[in-house]
Amino acid sequence: MVAGTASFAGRMAASIAGARSMLCVGLDPDGGDGAAAAERHCQQLLEATLPLVCAVKANLAFFEQYGSAGYATLERLRGEVPDDRMLILDAKRGDIGSTSAAYARALFDVLGADAVTVNPLLGRDSVAPFLSRGGRGVFVLTRTSNPGAADFLEVAGPDGTPLYQRIVDAATGWDGGGGAVGFVVGATAPGAVAEVRRRAPSAPLLLPGVGAQGGALEAAVGAGLDAAGAGVVVPVSRGLSAMPGAAAAVARDLRDRIAAVRPQG
Amino acid sequence: MVAGTASFAGRMAASIAGARSMLCVGLDPDGGDGAAAAERHCQQLLEATLPLVCAVKANLAFFEQYGSAGYATLERLRGEVPDDRMLILDAKRGDIGSTSAAYARALFDVLGADAVTVNPLLGRDSVAPFLSRGGRGVFVLTRTSNPGAADFLEVAGPDGTPLYQRIVDAATGWDGGGGAVGFVVGATAPGAVAEVRRRAPSAPLLLPGVGAQGGALEAAVGAGLDAAGAGVVVPVSRGLSAMPGAAAAVARDLRDRIAAVRPQG
Repeated sequence: MVAGTASFAGRMAASIAGARSMLCVGLDPDGGDGAAAAERHCQQLLEATLPLVCAVKANLAFFEQYGSAGYATLERLRGEVPDDRMLILDAKRGDIGSTSAAYARALFDVLGADAVTVNPLLGRDSVAPFLSRGGRGVFVLTRTSNPGAADFLEVAGPDGTPLYQRIVDAATGWDGGGGAVGFVVGATAPGAVAEVRRRAPSAPLLLPGVGAQGGALEAAVGAGLDAAGAGVVVPVSRGLSAMPGAAAAVARDLRDRIAAVRPQG
Repeated sequence: MVAGTASFAGRMAASIAGARSMLCVGLDPDGGDGAAAAERHCQQLLEATLPLVCAVKANLAFFEQYGSAGYATLERLRGEVPDDRMLILDAKRGDIGSTSAAYARALFDVLGADAVTVNPLLGRDSVAPFLSRGGRGVFVLTRTSNPGAADFLEVAGPDGTPLYQRIVDAATGWDGGGGAVGFVVGATAPGAVAEVRRRAPSAPLLLPGVGAQGGALEAAVGAGLDAAGAGVVVPVSRGLSAMPGAAAAVARDLRDRIAAVRPQG
């Protein structure tokens, strides 16, 4: 999809509508067979699932573990993702402003991301360089899907509000209505998904943790839908790559289960 | 330095003692002239400063902005850093456990880091894969040197303790006395440096923010020294690279100013 005057949130919604899917295929190549095998694995997974998804999410760690050859795979990946599907680079970056600006160049300009995941711990100036990028945007980490989310993200601040909720409010303010900010919320915590949706009614939500991590698909999607019955993106990685030959069938089932949660069916 | 039975903290101390320096040269190549020019710039900076520093810190963002060619530069960098100097990869990584494990493979096994900077927002299982790496270890982010540090890191928790201090206490517990955990504290906030040192008497402290960011060198080092009058690492990037011809002279001056803060002169 070409970035025109639409915001990132608008483009994400258009991709969901065009694909008739809120499923996202996750690329976490982890076979231990080197970069070339990882690339073939990603290509096969894309071929099987692209008609069934609104977005492709590549997890940078699983490419970086193959060194510069893995990074080159990421560069070629951009050409495998059609314009009407969003490319989400799951990078969890975040640093002081001048460094975040360099990460933004790497992720948006070199690797061609439509959206990137960012870590907001260092505050406003660590996220700002990823905004103001036309129709591109970010998914800011909130309550993640892992056990360690309880260590800091769920701890209350002076007014009793947990950190992950203060992150949502702060990042919504940084965006200033620009539609460049979405949020990552673990599907393992549907209550947190509902709370983020309440605080950010129109932000795209990325809901990882379905499948291998035990998140309940229907509960998380139901908690995350926006007023239009959309606005969520459900990335599935290991659940699709475990049996490559069955990826299309599994993806179709997941897409339909997500769609069935919507009020209009 | 070969990783033997010594802990990361022990190896860091040995590098400081061997080099007679707590200065660290930072590599943030940002000339806009491509990966080859960046590599030459790094080589020149290393040649001028290696005799005067205990460590080399490479900021991954400034290599990733050149794509896979920049990543390949990082791979070759390992060969430029002698065994008696520590290679710190400033990556600010942190993700769910299985992803952090892939980042640890990329940073330690592929790029050969002695230490990496990690972002602790996602809690214990996001940092654990970077520990238990023999004599290698991490610098965990605490109170950073940027304005956004006030947004979340300085906010008090239920018992009034700011987040960055709770991070120090938690990460010290995760380490369990293993000597694998150090901390990043901005030199722009000497009070925070003193507080981190009080909570972690024997952890190595990485103190960025001197120079371009306005941190006061003597105040930060004085607040961070351990009982042995060492235990701090002061990375300087822009201050050394701004005038390549003067890098050695600037590094010598910085090294001597840091040393002058030590009680024994």
